[in-house]
Amino acid sequence: MIWTVYLSGEIHSDWRERIEAGCQALDLPVAFVGPVTDHDASDAAGDHLGAEDKPFWRDNKSSKVNAIRTKTLIESADVAVVRFGSQYKQWNAAFDAGYLAALGTPFITLHDADIIHPLKEVDAAAMAWAQQPEQVVEILRYVTQGK
Amino acid sequence: MIWTVYLSGEIHSDWRERIEAGCQALDLPVAFVGPVTDHDASDAAGDHLGAEDKPFWRDNKSSKVNAIRTKTLIESADVAVVRFGSQYKQWNAAFDAGYLAALGTPFITLHDADIIHPLKEVDAAAMAWAQQPEQVVEILRYVTQGK
Amino acid sequence: MIWTVYLSGEIHSDWRERIEAGCQALDLPVAFVGPVTDHDASDAAGDHLGAEDKPFWRDNKSSKVNAIRTKTLIESADVAVVRFGSQYKQWNAAFDAGYLAALGTPFITLHDADIIHPLKEVDAAAMAWAQQPEQVVEILRYVTQGK
Amino acid sequence: MIWTVYLSGEIHSDWRERIEAGCQALDLPVAFVGPVTDHDASDAAGDHLGAEDKPFWRDNKSSKVNAIRTKTLIESADVAVVRFGSQYKQWNAAFDAGYLAALGTPFITLHDADIIHPLKEVDAAAMAWAQQPEQVVEILRYVTQGK
Amino acid sequence: MIWTVYLSGEIHSDWRERIEAGCQALDLPVAFVGPVTDHDASDAAGDHLGAEDKPFWRDNKSSKVNAIRTKTLIESADVAVVRFGSQYKQWNAAFDAGYLAALGTPFITLHDADIIHPLKEVDAAAMAWAQQPEQVVEILRYVTQGK
Amino acid sequence: MIWTVYLSGEIHSDWRERIEAGCQALDLPVAFVGPVTDHDASDAAGDHLGAEDKPFWRDNKSSKVNAIRTKTLIESADVAVVRFGSQYKQWNAAFDAGYLAALGTPFITLHDADIIHPLKEVDAAAMAWAQQPEQVVEILRYVTQGK
Amino acid sequence: MIWTVYLSGEIHSDWRERIEAGCQALDLPVAFVGPVTDHDASDAAGDHLGAEDKPFWRDNKSSKVNAIRTKTLIESADVAVVRFGSQYKQWNAAFDAGYLAALGTPFITLHDADIIHPLKEVDAAAMAWAQQPEQVVEILRYVTQGK
Amino acid sequence: MIWTVYLSGEIHSDWRERIEAGCQALDLPVAFVGPVTDHDASDAAGDHLGAEDKPFWRDNKSSKVNAIRTKTLIESADVAVVRFGSQYKQWNAAFDAGYLAALGTPFITLHDADIIHPLKEVDAAAMAWAQQPEQVVEILRYVTQGK
Repeated sequence: MIWTVYLSGEIHSDWRERIEAGCQALDLPVAFVGPVTDHDASDAAGDHLGAEDKPFWRDNKSSKVNAIRTKTLIESADVAVVRFGSQYKQWNAAFDAGYLAALGTPFITLHDADIIHPLKEVDAAAMAWAQQPEQVVEILRYVTQGK
Repeated sequence: MIWTVYLSGEIHSDWRERIEAGCQALDLPVAFVGPVTDHDASDAAGDHLGAEDKPFWRDNKSSKVNAIRTKTLIESADVAVVRFGSQYKQWNAAFDAGYLAALGTPFITLHDADIIHPLKEVDAAAMAWAQQPEQVVEILRYVTQGK
Repeated sequence: MIWTVYLSGEIHSDWRERIEAGCQALDLPVAFVGPVTDHDASDAAGDHLGAEDKPFWRDNKSSKVNAIRTKTLIESADVAVVRFGSQYKQWNAAFDAGYLAALGTPFITLHDADIIHPLKEVDAAAMAWAQQPEQVVEILRYVTQGK
Repeated sequence: MIWTVYLSGEIHSDWRERIEAGCQALDLPVAFVGPVTDHDASDAAGDHLGAEDKPFWRDNKSSKVNAIRTKTLIESADVAVVRFGSQYKQWNAAFDAGYLAALGTPFITLHDADIIHPLKEVDAAAMAWAQQPEQVVEILRYVTQGK
Repeated sequence: MIWTVYLSGEIHSDWRERIEAGCQALDLPVAFVGPVTDHDASDAAGDHLGAEDKPFWRDNKSSKVNAIRTKTLIESADVAVVRFGSQYKQWNAAFDAGYLAALGTPFITLHDADIIHPLKEVDAAAMAWAQQPEQVVEILRYVTQGK
Repeated sequence: MIWTVYLSGEIHSDWRERIEAGCQALDLPVAFVGPVTDHDASDAAGDHLGAEDKPFWRDNKSSKVNAIRTKTLIESADVAVVRFGSQYKQWNAAFDAGYLAALGTPFITLHDADIIHPLKEVDAAAMAWAQQPEQVVEILRYVTQGK
Repeated sequence: MIWTVYLSGEIHSDWRERIEAGCQALDLPVAFVGPVTDHDASDAAGDHLGAEDKPFWRDNKSSKVNAIRTKTLIESADVAVVRFGSQYKQWNAAFDAGYLAALGTPFITLHDADIIHPLKEVDAAAMAWAQQPEQVVEILRYVTQGK
Repeated sequence: MIWTVYLSGEIHSDWRERIEAGCQALDLPVAFVGPVTDHDASDAAGDHLGAEDKPFWRDNKSSKVNAIRTKTLIESADVAVVRFGSQYKQWNAAFDAGYLAALGTPFITLHDADIIHPLKEVDAAAMAWAQQPEQVVEILRYVTQGK
């Protein structure tokens, strides 16, 4: 069995790369999926469907195109990692966590200790809280290798 | 039919009261439910189960006790309103929105125009975006009265 | 048991009134629900959320507000009647029929014989095809009285 | 991951071929499925089960045989495209859209601007509205390539 | 809590009356529902929708009208009793049992010992096998009174 | 896509072989699954778990072992064929049909015209009624080849 | 809203009475349900269906009759309390906990600290761990009163 | 079809090895999955996420990491075997059985006759009770080979 792992959240640090590299080094049976992480491409995802004067509708169209991807991949995931940086709003990450919780898909949160309190509801629904990507790699190693 | 309406999110302004008063003035067939909005009571919800040294576990216990309430009431709702203030993190509101989206429960977002962009994924899953509580009242009036 | 009956489709003839009057005359245990049938009110359902220059977005906002109502009431229905006039497009009626089919909610179609062929996929998913509202009343009488 | 894309609706223009050719040219990881598009074959799908005097039953039998195919393939789809020509009734396309909406499967509508108003409920449930098959190709490219 | 009990199957003996009388005598909190048990009325349930030359289509129309009732009531049941007489085919009773099994609704079979072998698959999915209606009453008494 | 086809019901004629041979001759993308059709082996499926004095418990144990197989394979099926001979009780076939109906899995009935009336509820839930295995082959050909 | 609370597990102490009395004293909007707690009655629940020589079948019949009650009531519950005494096996309590976890129904465990380790998987799926019935009362008070 | 078989429960005897060896000797189409059976590794599964003073939280963290694995694999299983030794508490095995029952996944219990009575609720939900691993092998052989 190949485990599908969805990587949700912050796009400003190298946490995805560190998790992927760590799993690859261990040759774990995992396949990573996730949203489009190129910020500009993501914001422009609906532009080819016609220009909009209002920012709300441009965002709406792009977000819906992005949701075709994210909804499908989230629903295909066996496990997810939801990453919160300490300074951004990242409401989409919390939205994904709520979606995962309702689906019953186990997820791991990845964030620093300084945002424990505002993330308490999200952490309470998570299966684990990690502070470093390498801890996530260790969880994935244990879970997929079974020893 | 009495419509059950879940009011999720920000606890620092009077938006809940304005929606409830507006609906009451119109005698709409709605019943409001929601989380505990007393911040201190909410943070202390698990304290009677035993003291914790680490803030993480105190938060974890209280959040899980709160989740017994919120999860049950969210799943009982016909419609929800998710409110975001412009300055707080409110990851629990975004978490609720994701949970509602996965359940297929229609929800309305309530926030100012200055946070359209960070909320674009949440708004894209919503059935309406309102800026004032009175607009929410008007939606609830129309939806429940059917005219 | 009160049976909830959703009445979907055409708004240009008196079929709803005839079904409701017929059931009332027999004192059947049924409660009727349905979309907003005032065409202008329906088209304007989202106008109070802000004006739109493009007809697409005005329609989009109003349709989503209407969907809060219709989706909730369709999901609450025990049985539905889906009415097609012979001359209109009524894609929303066919959309409702598909939604009901996926939910597994039994529905009755109500239309003239001249549109049997274009409605064949919808009729194939229906539990009955009636040509007159009074036939629908007779089905509801039999189904709810059980004799 | 190969994305399964259901192509629903109008059979009188080359929109399916243009989408398929466009995706093939880009070597996208998509597999297309859909209904039988040979009109006469579709109408005759149940004829070998015995002749019928009444058109209603001939249509009923053929539509049910067709539904074995369409229902199974729609439920297997990750994404769908629902095409409406401007002049036909195409109630089966709107029926498919309702079915997809109830399943929570994201779909894209493809139609001209002149039928925005009668399609407003369908568009409101869609993730995107395209006017040209090439716009659909671009959405599928973005969604499956993730950049 | 009032327990809804669906009574499925044979219509040629007084088993329904004996169960209902027994529960009434004990004042149990149960409400009985079931199919139309008037054989002629049941066969004619679709006749008012238009005459059919072929027996297959007359049966088909009436069975579908009956299914609006039975499907809805079966899905509303907390418990069901499925009765098989020793001499009739009663495929509809076995069909109901399969439907109940798939829904996960507990059911009790009621039949004589001489048809244990042909009913083995149905009995294996049941929660109890009773031979007399009074045994069913005793199960319902115990289950609803809890002592 | 390989279509999984469950073959349920009568074990006293060669209908399974005729369907399988017909599909093989056409090289259709189908995989057949079904219950154990060796009558004695099926009746003895639980014997190795310990002898029973009462026929009821021997049947119960064997039926449950068989159900591990049948339930899993039925739930894996895309389409099913349910065969009824004219003289046997075959309550397990009707049970399977009810189970399939509740799952929403399309099924085809295969039986002679002399048992139309007792099978009317089962046929009403089916997508097609065939009288010859070769008609089933033709349905499977059309459905899987799409032309 | 009246909250339905299922009380599962140990029958040798007065924990049920203490929870019920505590909630009654506070006039909480809760309704308690649960299994039959009369040990002899529970063991004999199937005896009236006929005597059995083997203890296994007597237990099997009684357990299935009991399951008609417990399965229905567990599925009706908004919240559950699962009690483990320190000395008994109580596999049915752990079974109920697993059932609740799969349904997504929140549950509270009630047990002493000396069995934390063998109950770790059950506690990990619970929303709270209480050691005294009065702590459960406090959770129910907070959750249902919302303050 | 390869059948996925989840092996739950006791870790102090060689029952897993005997089942796996027996199936391998017969070349059965089965793939075995299960929890981590190294007791110390399982207890330490969450240790790398940070040390805990209280045993409850150490257990909680490790159990949740383990649950990422077990929940995913249980939900992927076609069949399960749940083993109870006669002397241990093994509440996790009963928890798994309840989870499987709620999912509708068939399972086989494996235990000696001396614990029939405390396991009666679990056995009542099982498809078979075996006393020896070789009996489980025979069930798997029959179920997967179909003869």
